Amino acid sequence: KTLKIAALAGDGIGPEVMREAIKVLRAVEKKFALTINITEAPVGWAGIDAAGKALPDATLKLCKESDCILFGSVGLPDRDPTIPKEERPERAALLRLRKEFSLFANLRPVKLPKELSHACPLAKERQGTGIDILVVRELTGGMYFGQPKKTEQISAGASKATILRAIDTMVYTTPEIERIAHVAFKTARLRRKKVTSIDKANVLENGVLWRDVVTTVAKEYPDVQLEHMFVDNGAMQLVLKPTQFDVMLCENMFGDILSDEAAALGGSLGMLPSASLGSAGSTGQFGFYEPAGGTAPDIAGKNLANPIAQILSTALMLRYTFNLNDAALAIENAVGKVISDGLRTGDIFSASETNARKVGTTEMGDAIAAAI
Amino acid sequence: KTLKIAALAGDGIGPEVMREAIKVLRAVEKKFALTINITEAPVGWAGIDAAGKALPDATLKLCKESDCILFGSVGLPDRDPTIPKEERPERAALLRLRKEFSLFANLRPVKLPKELSHACPLAKERQGTGIDILVVRELTGGMYFGQPKKTEQISAGASKATILRAIDTMVYTTPEIERIAHVAFKTARLRRKKVTSIDKANVLENGVLWRDVVTTVAKEYPDVQLEHMFVDNGAMQLVLKPTQFDVMLCENMFGDILSDEAAALGGSLGMLPSASLGSAGSTGQFGFYEPAGGTAPDIAGKNLANPIAQILSTALMLRYTFNLNDAALAIENAVGKVISDGLRTGDIFSASETNARKVGTTEMGDAIAAAI
Ligand SMILES: [Mg+2]
Ligand SMILES: [Mg+2]
Repeated sequence: KTLKIAALAGDGIGPEVMREAIKVLRAVEKKFALTINITEAPVGWAGIDAAGKALPDATLKLCKESDCILFGSVGLPDRDPTIPKEERPERAALLRLRKEFSLFANLRPVKLPKELSHACPLAKERQGTGIDILVVRELTGGMYFGQPKKTEQISAGASKATILRAIDTMVYTTPEIERIAHVAFKTARLRRKKVTSIDKANVLENGVLWRDVVTTVAKEYPDVQLEHMFVDNGAMQLVLKPTQFDVMLCENMFGDILSDEAAALGGSLGMLPSASLGSAGSTGQFGFYEPAGGTAPDIAGKNLANPIAQILSTALMLRYTFNLNDAALAIENAVGKVISDGLRTGDIFSASETNARKVGTTEMGDAIAAAI
Repeated sequence: KTLKIAALAGDGIGPEVMREAIKVLRAVEKKFALTINITEAPVGWAGIDAAGKALPDATLKLCKESDCILFGSVGLPDRDPTIPKEERPERAALLRLRKEFSLFANLRPVKLPKELSHACPLAKERQGTGIDILVVRELTGGMYFGQPKKTEQISAGASKATILRAIDTMVYTTPEIERIAHVAFKTARLRRKKVTSIDKANVLENGVLWRDVVTTVAKEYPDVQLEHMFVDNGAMQLVLKPTQFDVMLCENMFGDILSDEAAALGGSLGMLPSASLGSAGSTGQFGFYEPAGGTAPDIAGKNLANPIAQILSTALMLRYTFNLNDAALAIENAVGKVISDGLRTGDIFSASETNARKVGTTEMGDAIAAAI
């Protein structure tokens, strides 16, 4: 079977780190005797410059004909304000693709290799034998989309003065919670088999329903340990004892908050990949894979960017869209090896490390490809 | 003028730490030539044992006749489950008092003395010259109370199967945001004059209104610097660079999450006081002051509890209810002095400190009272 990948590098450091990711993918293709068909297409400002819009028709067509999208990053702070909001890369490409492919599950793994403990904001003794957390965030429901969502004028008080009232609504239905819970339990099976479900069941109706549904779904995964935690305690525990977590299952807003907090523990955004998954169809699980960081235009084109987030995104792609967990592990182990060998891009370099060697984007990619 | 204080020690370590707090208050009374009238009354299980309910009528009457409540802590994990939820100390005393006195502003300061940097989960270089954050949390509005709040049955899909839908509503009106913003700006004036307002204005109607109203209120405080931050970034920045924050102004749920995350940076819950304020009336600002920790029944009665959270709560009481900022500072400085002198209760003791000396609850209280 041919793996069909749409590679949209985008703007800023996107093309540089994508090049290294493809290099590593080619090494995996060879080692595992796969047939990988990678087609590159412009997106973001590259799309606007090439075809007049952030998501050119040909690029969208390519995505629809592919098994998944390997995405770089889009948007340029100095050019974005020159066009209307709806046409900017963030909305016209990123959000558009999310909607087009009904991406409802956002997976953000945070793994701190012990060699990079100096880059983690936590004291060493809190890092234990290494932080390794996967935040599974529901991406299409909850507070950010629920209706009613409006600001209205009301008159209040004896004076009947006009004041404003803002309303947002958190809504979840049983099936929405079920499908994201299945993603969490399935992915926990590929890890340390523990799910911490985050909610606020002591005050929210959504919290009670979330806890009930997750508890029910858990019965289908008797080999996975389930625990429940309130979101405020979760925010505290991530700082106090992050090593207690394997998979953290969150609704949309709590996942937005906790995944960023967890990301801060990872040392550098340049190390963090992400996956956004749609429904599993007959042809497999469509997925959208991108690094957590942005376009970083200040270092673009200078061979300074850390390609690891993009490279680890391809590992997630092999794992979740193609069910090639061995190939995914090969990439993750190769990254672990070059880190352990002391190779560092600038964002993870510390002069205090004795065996560290500062390298550029391409050298890092070469080394990881060679380690496959 | 006589300061009238209702002292409700409650359960577990409550009475022990309250005793030390009163000891310190008496020292302040002497030094600043105040007249402090402290009346003690039972609450929680102490209330149930003495008068049949968690908030005895006489205790509530005393509170109403006082300027403020100095509260210990209530609830005992082994006894709570033996009575109905509504009668348990948490609901029948704590939540009841919050409602009775319309406490809408929750203030949680987190201050890490540099001598206790070892107790902070962050690496030393992230602590800068010391973490000193005040989270101001709105306590009566937002998601936890907004209507509609319900779980309903709906039929969905082709099969018309019955599923559940949970709904919670986040609601804020202009005046609710105004009054908590004023609290934040006023208290910032007593500190480093910076307010970081937390919202999610990029996706929530509440976020947009919150940002607008806070920006307008800020005009009345031109000497205070205002910045806005998204809640997910706030959760990240608390870990990456906590020293950037002075006052963090949050709506109810975001404040619930971020104040617990910030508390984790403080080294020990035994160090963290809190204040809950009602509306300022003609007789001043009614307030409810309590330590952040709980009853800790495992160490109750053993002279092991850290009384500092309770003692610092009295400092907040002097500052916010009685406008006695100098007396408040005297307590805070006295606490700083004994910490710097090396006195440590078990929760903040580390064998790696060369000058530290482990002391009990009473010795800590004695030393702080002596340092006033
Ligand atoms: Mg976020
Ligand atoms: Mg909380």
